[in-house]
Amino acid sequence: MIRPVHGGNLAWAAALAGCPASAILDFSASISPLGPPESALAAIQAHLSSLTAYPDPDYGELRTALGEALNVDRDWILPGNGSAELLTWAAWDLSKLEATYVVTPAFGDYSRALSAFGAQVLECPLELQSLDAEAGSRLVTDDLSVSNRSLVSPSLCLPVPLAIDAHRRGLLLNNPHNPTGLLFGRKAILPYLKQLGMVVVDEAFMDFLPPSEQETLIDAVEEFPNLVILRSLTKFYSLPGLRLGCAIAHPNILRRWQLQRDPWPVNALAAAAAAAVVRDTVFERQTWDWLPVARRELFEGLANLPGLQPFAGAANFLLVESSMSVSSIQKSLLERHRILIRDCLSFPELGDRFFRVAVRSRADNLLLIAGLSEVIRQLTVVS
Amino acid sequence: MIRPVHGGNLAWAAALAGCPASAILDFSASISPLGPPESALAAIQAHLSSLTAYPDPDYGELRTALGEALNVDRDWILPGNGSAELLTWAAWDLSKLEATYVVTPAFGDYSRALSAFGAQVLECPLELQSLDAEAGSRLVTDDLSVSNRSLVSPSLCLPVPLAIDAHRRGLLLNNPHNPTGLLFGRKAILPYLKQLGMVVVDEAFMDFLPPSEQETLIDAVEEFPNLVILRSLTKFYSLPGLRLGCAIAHPNILRRWQLQRDPWPVNALAAAAAAAVVRDTVFERQTWDWLPVARRELFEGLANLPGLQPFAGAANFLLVESSMSVSSIQKSLLERHRILIRDCLSFPELGDRFFRVAVRSRADNLLLIAGLSEVIRQLTVVS
Repeated sequence: MIRPVHGGNLAWAAALAGCPASAILDFSASISPLGPPESALAAIQAHLSSLTAYPDPDYGELRTALGEALNVDRDWILPGNGSAELLTWAAWDLSKLEATYVVTPAFGDYSRALSAFGAQVLECPLELQSLDAEAGSRLVTDDLSVSNRSLVSPSLCLPVPLAIDAHRRGLLLNNPHNPTGLLFGRKAILPYLKQLGMVVVDEAFMDFLPPSEQETLIDAVEEFPNLVILRSLTKFYSLPGLRLGCAIAHPNILRRWQLQRDPWPVNALAAAAAAAVVRDTVFERQTWDWLPVARRELFEGLANLPGLQPFAGAANFLLVESSMSVSSIQKSLLERHRILIRDCLSFPELGDRFFRVAVRSRADNLLLIAGLSEVIRQLTVVS
Repeated sequence: MIRPVHGGNLAWAAALAGCPASAILDFSASISPLGPPESALAAIQAHLSSLTAYPDPDYGELRTALGEALNVDRDWILPGNGSAELLTWAAWDLSKLEATYVVTPAFGDYSRALSAFGAQVLECPLELQSLDAEAGSRLVTDDLSVSNRSLVSPSLCLPVPLAIDAHRRGLLLNNPHNPTGLLFGRKAILPYLKQLGMVVVDEAFMDFLPPSEQETLIDAVEEFPNLVILRSLTKFYSLPGLRLGCAIAHPNILRRWQLQRDPWPVNALAAAAAAAVVRDTVFERQTWDWLPVARRELFEGLANLPGLQPFAGAANFLLVESSMSVSSIQKSLLERHRILIRDCLSFPELGDRFFRVAVRSRADNLLLIAGLSEVIRQLTVVS
């Protein structure tokens, strides 16, 4: 089996661990451990009888629900078959520009979408080392107090140049950034909106921050017709199997995408579940209560292990630097503990000395720490 | 509300009829009335607990099931989010050729997909009148004996030229043809495979014919690396809400599409249902038993109404020529009987004198005939 380039490939992990996929404890996909909400499953059950009809191609009810949740008029929202489908159309638009800036290490699907249409990519590397100096202006100080290198900084500048011919160039960026967890401030992105031809901000993990700490640019779409925000419902609501996302942008862009893409990309059960979960404020609150505490504990557990150094992040995952080969750690964790972590081999800038783990429940996080501790001890003895 | 360009838009119809969408008797979408099979619903229920995991991006189990059902090695199959998603990628490939032949009237989604990427389209009109002469070589003689114009002919030639520079051109065709129901014979298409750069045959309705009567080109993909077959699981299994389709083609094409498109286009519930239904031979047999009888009765009922002339078709729908305005008939049918038929205004070659109806259950078909009879009588009195 080919090594997966995304997290969450349980079929691959199960083959390696010699167990069923359901027995794998998955830290590789950055999915909330709290869901899916009951409201999602109830909505799916209620809509099983409507599978004999095509989905409403207008997705009116779903756009209304998303609009209320995101505080945007529904004409400025387009639901998608996961945000990955919408990324494909964003990449098609970006491919018509002279070039697109991508901050690296970058989520692997960006290169997939951009190269599908032959878009010219200009890589803009984040200098992970220099981020240590940024500890001054922390957004989430409470749970990051143990960190000596905070990647959460609203004042951090993007490593992206602003050339004279900037209007012929685009930018594709995720915020919070994956895999580092870095949160860019709105102010760091706004100057690019004024100059670049198109800016696509993938806010797939923004909903994990409570509203007061979010640095979303959703409310800037009215001012900037060259801005596209991508949102995922997969991660926060633990529904990656269902495929759910949306784009927020000027209606002119979204209407064009709707005419270009297939007419019914979101399946009827996914549409029903999405409309239900975004109204589930109880689940939302549970998530915002769970994450900061669980993330701090996981961060501390990782930081206390020999040879590991986690980066403080704003999302529901942590990037960890390792003094040992991550491939070896990953393999042993799978074989001995049926635990899957996300290696970073698909990020050329990171390679075999970094891994990423999702923040899960307290009990699961303790299993990860115990497993890592045992594996690192064992690998150290062998070497 | 904008008039829909596809069948099955129940939200639009319900607004016009002043009733809930569930109260509409839908003849506009060419969906089997027999499904969804119990096997689909059972598979969905069994997989609700797996929504917290990403679908297997390889869709190995689904490809195995499809391969067994279609008698093709699984490496030659790519599942899609409805065949519409795969049509988008076929259109991307076709857009790189000099031009693409499309037989008209054509399924509306072809123009959507081709124009999304700026493909050059060369329309090749079917001459409906001249098809009367084709009555000699009928495939399905039993149930078409009442017809004086058969559109079911394996000897019929495609109205597509074979130019000298044919290798720089493509062809996009559905077989059976929608909206006429015409079935092209394999022999009519094979010459184009030898000369054109790419041939995409959309066999969305082929499974409605029993195997002995199918004119599928699936077994030609090994010989012709420029051939792509699209199949839908939506129509035969009554699952348009679930979005299910697949492409059959040379692995080189499918692997490229897999790298270009988003990694998890088929949602986990759709993948599970698809793997289950293609093994449901009982449902398959029921469909092949129901359709010829129900289609013949519907054909006769339509032919006996004043001013209507149905075309005999090979699929699960019938195209009907009308001496009265179809918009008026459609509106009255909706308002007075909550019955939705597919007008042909989105096919410029057909306009307001044609409509298309799905073949439904015997009871539903009788309701349609009764409703049409009443509406035509009433409209005749008024005019």
